[in-house]
Amino acid sequence: MALADAPQKSSPVEGTVQQAQEQAEKSEDRKKRVVILGSGWGATAVMQGLDTSLYETIIVSPRNYFLFTPLLPGVCVGTVEGRSISEAVRKMIVNAKSSAKYQEAEAISIDPKNQQVLCKDTSAISVTGKDSFALDYDYLVVAVGAETNTFGTPGVKEHAYFLKEIDDADKIREKVIDCFETACLPSTTEEEKRRLLHFIVVGGGPTGCEFAAELHDLVEEDLKRLYPECAPYTKVTLVQSADHILNTFDQRISDYATKHFLRSDINVKVSCRVINVTDRTLTIWDKWKKQKEELEFGVTVWATGIGTRPLVSDLMEKIGQSDRRALLTDEWLRVKGTQGIYAIGDCATVQQRSLVEDVTYLFKLADKDGDGKLTYDELAKVLSEVKERFPQVEHHLSKSGLRILLHDFAEDPSKITLDIDAFTKALSKIDSQVKALPATAQVASQEGTYLAKALNHMAERNIVPEGPMRIRGEGRHLCHPFRYKHFGQFTTLGGGEASVELPGDWVSSGRSTMWLWYSVYASKQVSWRTRCLVVMDWMKAALFGRDSSRM
Amino acid sequence: MALADAPQKSSPVEGTVQQAQEQAEKSEDRKKRVVILGSGWGATAVMQGLDTSLYETIIVSPRNYFLFTPLLPGVCVGTVEGRSISEAVRKMIVNAKSSAKYQEAEAISIDPKNQQVLCKDTSAISVTGKDSFALDYDYLVVAVGAETNTFGTPGVKEHAYFLKEIDDADKIREKVIDCFETACLPSTTEEEKRRLLHFIVVGGGPTGCEFAAELHDLVEEDLKRLYPECAPYTKVTLVQSADHILNTFDQRISDYATKHFLRSDINVKVSCRVINVTDRTLTIWDKWKKQKEELEFGVTVWATGIGTRPLVSDLMEKIGQSDRRALLTDEWLRVKGTQGIYAIGDCATVQQRSLVEDVTYLFKLADKDGDGKLTYDELAKVLSEVKERFPQVEHHLSKSGLRILLHDFAEDPSKITLDIDAFTKALSKIDSQVKALPATAQVASQEGTYLAKALNHMAERNIVPEGPMRIRGEGRHLCHPFRYKHFGQFTTLGGGEASVELPGDWVSSGRSTMWLWYSVYASKQVSWRTRCLVVMDWMKAALFGRDSSRM
Repeated sequence: MALADAPQKSSPVEGTVQQAQEQAEKSEDRKKRVVILGSGWGATAVMQGLDTSLYETIIVSPRNYFLFTPLLPGVCVGTVEGRSISEAVRKMIVNAKSSAKYQEAEAISIDPKNQQVLCKDTSAISVTGKDSFALDYDYLVVAVGAETNTFGTPGVKEHAYFLKEIDDADKIREKVIDCFETACLPSTTEEEKRRLLHFIVVGGGPTGCEFAAELHDLVEEDLKRLYPECAPYTKVTLVQSADHILNTFDQRISDYATKHFLRSDINVKVSCRVINVTDRTLTIWDKWKKQKEELEFGVTVWATGIGTRPLVSDLMEKIGQSDRRALLTDEWLRVKGTQGIYAIGDCATVQQRSLVEDVTYLFKLADKDGDGKLTYDELAKVLSEVKERFPQVEHHLSKSGLRILLHDFAEDPSKITLDIDAFTKALSKIDSQVKALPATAQVASQEGTYLAKALNHMAERNIVPEGPMRIRGEGRHLCHPFRYKHFGQFTTLGGGEASVELPGDWVSSGRSTMWLWYSVYASKQVSWRTRCLVVMDWMKAALFGRDSSRM
Repeated sequence: MALADAPQKSSPVEGTVQQAQEQAEKSEDRKKRVVILGSGWGATAVMQGLDTSLYETIIVSPRNYFLFTPLLPGVCVGTVEGRSISEAVRKMIVNAKSSAKYQEAEAISIDPKNQQVLCKDTSAISVTGKDSFALDYDYLVVAVGAETNTFGTPGVKEHAYFLKEIDDADKIREKVIDCFETACLPSTTEEEKRRLLHFIVVGGGPTGCEFAAELHDLVEEDLKRLYPECAPYTKVTLVQSADHILNTFDQRISDYATKHFLRSDINVKVSCRVINVTDRTLTIWDKWKKQKEELEFGVTVWATGIGTRPLVSDLMEKIGQSDRRALLTDEWLRVKGTQGIYAIGDCATVQQRSLVEDVTYLFKLADKDGDGKLTYDELAKVLSEVKERFPQVEHHLSKSGLRILLHDFAEDPSKITLDIDAFTKALSKIDSQVKALPATAQVASQEGTYLAKALNHMAERNIVPEGPMRIRGEGRHLCHPFRYKHFGQFTTLGGGEASVELPGDWVSSGRSTMWLWYSVYASKQVSWRTRCLVVMDWMKAALFGRDSSRM
């Protein structure tokens, strides 16, 4: 029960094995304890990076494995198997040569005042009456991810399938095959066949699009051959509420995907909002036609929206963030209004500071000669001084340049003089570049890596700070703030095609991009085991087709 | 709805696709219809062998895939994956170049008078009110297998896991890992740890022994490394009601296995009958010590006993076989008391005719000179004439020889004369060789292959019978009766060892036998897909260990 005690306390227990354990724990008690909640992209990145000779590290998650979520749509149709894209947390700890401990339990509530997390074994096998325990922490990393958001749409929870976990994917796979089998029975009418073989995907983001594409491939390449009598009845529909699909991607990719889907006979319905789901019909509201439409379906997959987990809502209420969707952190990923709590991944939002907030301080800093006016040089100097603290400055300047920014204020920007009002206007123009970070694996993983590094170097930074200068105070911040570096994004489109968008406005779509996709996703696997397995799965699917056993 | 009609009837439907289908169905209507119930060893063997140019063939089974059951114990621990040992029935039909149809439904009842099967879609996705249909048949093959028999032991159904389907194996795998995870929680007491990590296997047959061995390997080779704190508490116990394990095997193998298990610290409890199971304790009755014992466990797997499926019980009641465990068939696999119904595999028992039953006919046949006495030559001649009809004759003669049989009757068997009483005695000695066929994949598969061949050649045999001569009638039987050919049996023992028993009293155990096991089981796979996957799984487990993700 040592874990339930405060790291400073410990009680003597008898028996040699226990004594040895106790000894080890005692010597570790001097270390501060980091508790990591979750086993996804963020949590495992922290675990892998954290120096366990400096911190006692405990990971708590009800799911005892990491899941390579970007390949989950493929699990629904059998292009890859669930076990090929997951790695046990304990195995990852061994692989990372870490001495972190793992506890398979769910964090039920966080007590930020007493720095304690209450955990509970929520699995089928638990010890009655002894299924919960408290963990004290010095630092807490909340990386529990998010739930699917149904936006309160009636019937979604009951009748649609989500796409977040292996279990969801397995269920979808089974149901799709079940629909085909039921459609083949002699007792099924033609009308019912048409309904059973209509598959609807809600959400035109990368997950929805990839799943629609994978499903279409499964139907065309494998199932039509095994269920020839079903061929005339199959249909895949993608419902998107925005006016085009893949709207976080470059317009060229979005257009290419739309055309590709039309060509492969995937029915794309944009500007349609789902308003109701029953066991066999989906009602949508067409924003353009301004009318309702009812779609009969066999399986509906809901692949949109990010909701808040109860643990996170509960914590937000305790720290006065109750009207939010995710935990608000500062740029050092510290949850605002707490001590020692960090939040990363889908359950967190980094508050990016706006320049306008600090306009008086910045003006004072810039106005070296104190004449109440800023020259071009003074402006350029201050912006370059604060660009680390305010990343929007760099974004803006690299995209448009200072001259273009100042074009509104004077014909010749080099001869400009700005008063505080004009300065505020210019800054708010730069602030418009601030964008919330997307809820992606890439962001969560970078946050985790950043956080581990920050914690590892905390002692040194206390002596030699390396962060940017403080705007409203003296000296420097201890560490650099977290900066997200976008490495681009991929999406598969089915039929052996993919699209990619890389930094530097580089966009590509087609078959060769699919090969790039294969190599990037293989290289990004968390272990050699999953890397081999994923590649073997792809070969397997190519050689033998996808398996249609309903298990 | 054509399938629901009698094969002779058909109704005109409009539309070109349907017309074409209808046309095809009409032309097939002239063929007799074979309905196969099941998708296991027996059913798929019939499907693969049956000439679909002669028969309209329909397979009905709620499980849309074939499962290579002998490797199921490996699925429980992750040595092989479920999908690697299963093949979709539709894929097998395509691979066999058969034109059989498959219907994913459960046969609910058989109407032997009207030659009709009532089927129902019992899967999650079915069309309400239209989920059942009737199928007429000319020939019905009942190959639905058996359920696990709990022998009425209280608590088994509720608290023990069975080992028949993929789903069972997945559940066991998940629960074992869950026990390890729960044992690692700080809130779990030492006593509970000991309980959670005690795994009990009931049944000392090949399934039980292989599972116990696989589980032991999983714990020793993989889990102890990932859960070092659990190592001192793990225990595997095998409970067997007979006085030694593997009692269908040669005594030498049984002894070797017992020693091997003791060496690897698997706790073997023989002569113990389970009398009660609760959620945490198993009560056994030790037949030797004549006392009860309570064993606390984390997971109990029940791997013994063969019970009757409701469909089979229902049919047995209708045809006056109600007090039996399995359908009684004659040696041509025809269910006794029915027309056109065959039964194979675990749901059937072949009644092997005893010689004594036909003693008067046989005596008459043998006594060529009609003197009421049989000489050695007369006896030898009649036995060789009837040995096809009565396989026990061949078994006995090949093992002991006629001279040894007759040793009881005279010093010098060649000068013997037997009256009818002595003849009856001699025959009953031969009859003692009659053994019920075991409930194995090998038997079911051979029965299926035999049946398909018999059906394929039925027309020719009606003109030229090729069976043995009728004992009580004139002429010959149409076909040869079914004869089981035993190719030997394997069992794995864990720790890279296996045992094998081959015909001709050939017995071997150890590591080299394991390699034989690998090659035989790889070669016996039903398709190249599963063959590749199984071999890849073995390599994967050897390279990367078994996965401990709880999914």
